[in-house]
Amino acid sequence: MEKFDIHILGCGSALPTLKHHPTSQVLNIREKLFMIDCGEGTQQNFRHTHLKFSRLNHIFISHLHGDHCFGLIGLISTLNLLGRTNALYIYGPSGIKEFLMPQIDFFCPNIAFEVIIKSFSTKKKALIYEDRTLTVHAIPLRHRLPTMGFYFEERAPLPHIRRDMIDFLKIPIYAINGIKQGADWITEDGAFYPNERLVFPATPARKYAYLSDTCFVPENADLVKGATLLYHEATFLESEAKRAEETQHSTAKQAAEFAKLADVQQLLIGHYSGRYDSEDQHLSEAQTIFPNTLLAQEGLCISI
Amino acid sequence: MEKFDIHILGCGSALPTLKHHPTSQVLNIREKLFMIDCGEGTQQNFRHTHLKFSRLNHIFISHLHGDHCFGLIGLISTLNLLGRTNALYIYGPSGIKEFLMPQIDFFCPNIAFEVIIKSFSTKKKALIYEDRTLTVHAIPLRHRLPTMGFYFEERAPLPHIRRDMIDFLKIPIYAINGIKQGADWITEDGAFYPNERLVFPATPARKYAYLSDTCFVPENADLVKGATLLYHEATFLESEAKRAEETQHSTAKQAAEFAKLADVQQLLIGHYSGRYDSEDQHLSEAQTIFPNTLLAQEGLCISI
Repeated sequence: MEKFDIHILGCGSALPTLKHHPTSQVLNIREKLFMIDCGEGTQQNFRHTHLKFSRLNHIFISHLHGDHCFGLIGLISTLNLLGRTNALYIYGPSGIKEFLMPQIDFFCPNIAFEVIIKSFSTKKKALIYEDRTLTVHAIPLRHRLPTMGFYFEERAPLPHIRRDMIDFLKIPIYAINGIKQGADWITEDGAFYPNERLVFPATPARKYAYLSDTCFVPENADLVKGATLLYHEATFLESEAKRAEETQHSTAKQAAEFAKLADVQQLLIGHYSGRYDSEDQHLSEAQTIFPNTLLAQEGLCISI
Repeated sequence: MEKFDIHILGCGSALPTLKHHPTSQVLNIREKLFMIDCGEGTQQNFRHTHLKFSRLNHIFISHLHGDHCFGLIGLISTLNLLGRTNALYIYGPSGIKEFLMPQIDFFCPNIAFEVIIKSFSTKKKALIYEDRTLTVHAIPLRHRLPTMGFYFEERAPLPHIRRDMIDFLKIPIYAINGIKQGADWITEDGAFYPNERLVFPATPARKYAYLSDTCFVPENADLVKGATLLYHEATFLESEAKRAEETQHSTAKQAAEFAKLADVQQLLIGHYSGRYDSEDQHLSEAQTIFPNTLLAQEGLCISI
C-alpha cells in the first residue's frame, strides 16, 4: 500500500518540559511530506525522522500560539541555507502573514524560494488543499483564538483489477483503465460481464483528522466521521476539567468521547500539559471510553 | 568559592544536526544567571540544566543570525506564562529591537514584565553591564554582519582575613572591614602591623571571554588577555581554512592560536559546522597548539 505515515515531532503544550517538544507532525503521503504545526525546535526533530527536507512543500498551521508556530522562521532559514528553490506553501489563520513575512525579510533577505502564505477563515469546514490523490479540509475548532483542525483524505482509490478474469476473457490492455473506472465488458460473442465481476473492491480511502487545540465540541464529530486515525488534543485529565474549560482545551476523557461520537478507527492523544510526570492516566482515562487509543510521543510513527 | 559556572546549552552552527543545538550558554555567577545567545530550542535546553528561569535577568546576543537569536521569542513567551514580573534586559546589536518587539506585541499582548532592549555599537570594546561583583564588556568581532563577543570579569575580590592574626592581636570586629580594604593596624602599645601581615592575598578575579562568531582576529587577543576561560568558535578544521575565511568563521587551529596569543588559562571550542561527524579532529588540531583545550558539548558545565 502507498505510504500514509504520521510522524510525531512534538506533542507537548506551551511550557517546555524535559519530556516533550512543542507541537509538530509530519505526514508522509506517497513520499510527499505535509507538516502540521511547527513549534520551536521542529527543524531539529524533523532531522531526527531522516525524512528529506526537500520533499516538504506544504505546512499547515492550526493557530497562532507560539507553541504551534515559533519554529517556522528557523525551518524557513534552514531550507534557504540548504539551497531550496521550490515554492513553500503555508496555510494558516489570518495574521500569519503579518508576523512571518517581516521575519523572513529580516533574516533571509537573500531567500531563493517563494513563501506563499494562504490565510483562511475559521467559520466552516473548507477545502484548503487538493492534488491528484489527496484533499485537505480545514475544520473550525473552539479555542482562545481562531483555530482550525485539518482533515487529510485520500481520494477514493480505484478498485483492483481481477487478473484471473482479465486473462480468462482475454481483455486487451487498452480496456483495463476503463474497467478500473467502472466499465463493464462485452465479449466478441456478446456475453455481458458486469464491472463487479472484473474487479475486487478498492482499498478504503484513508483519512487522518488532526484536532488541536480545542475544547470538546461534539458537533465537530460529524465533520471527521469514520476517520482512520484521529489526533485529538488531551491537554488535561478529567480531574482538571474546569481548567480545561477555562483554557479551552480538552481532557483525555473528552477526546475519547469525541472519538466515539466520530466513530473513528483509532484515537491518538497528545498536547499534554507539563504538569503531569507521565501520561499513563491520560491513556487509561481515554481507553475506558475508547479502547483503541494510543499516546502520542516524540519519534512515534504511525502508518495507516 | 562563589559560583562561576558556564553551562553549554548549544554549540552547533546554523544547520540543525542530530548532535548539536544552535548556540546558547548560561553563566551562573553567584546564583545570578546570564544568558549568552539564544538559538532555537534554548528554553528547552535551559530546562535541562535545572537552573531557575526566574534567576535569569540579562541576555546578551552576539549578532542577529537566526542560530543565535531565534529562541528569544519562545523564551520570553514562557517567562510570561510562568508569571514573571521582573524586567528582562537584552543586550544586542542594532536591529534587535526592530525584529523582537513586533513579535512580543503579536504573541504576548498581555506581557506582565518589561523587556528592556539595549542596543550597542560594535566598533570598540565597551562596558555594557556592571553590578557590585561583575562587569561585562562587549568586544568587536569580525563576521558577516555586526557581531560582538562578551567579556565577563569579576571585580577584584577582597583579600582573605588572617583569622589567626585577628585573634592574636584581639582586633575588634568593627575594624575588620577596613583591613579587608587594605588598612594597617596599630595596637594600643603602638606596635605597627602592615596590612600584608593581616591578610592572605585575594583569590584572583575570574574572567570568561565568549568570542563567536568571528574570523581569526589576532589583535583582539589583547582585549581578553589572561582570561581564565576563553570560548572561541571553531566552526571548521584547518583543511577548510578557505571556507572559514569566506564565511568569516575560524578553524580549530586559529582558535588555539588566538588562545595562545591571549595567554588564557583554558580554551573551550564550539560552533561546529554540521559537516563533521565528530569533533575529535577539532580537539587534536587545537591541542597541538594550545594543549589545555576542551570541546564544548550540550550539557557540559565548567566551573571556573
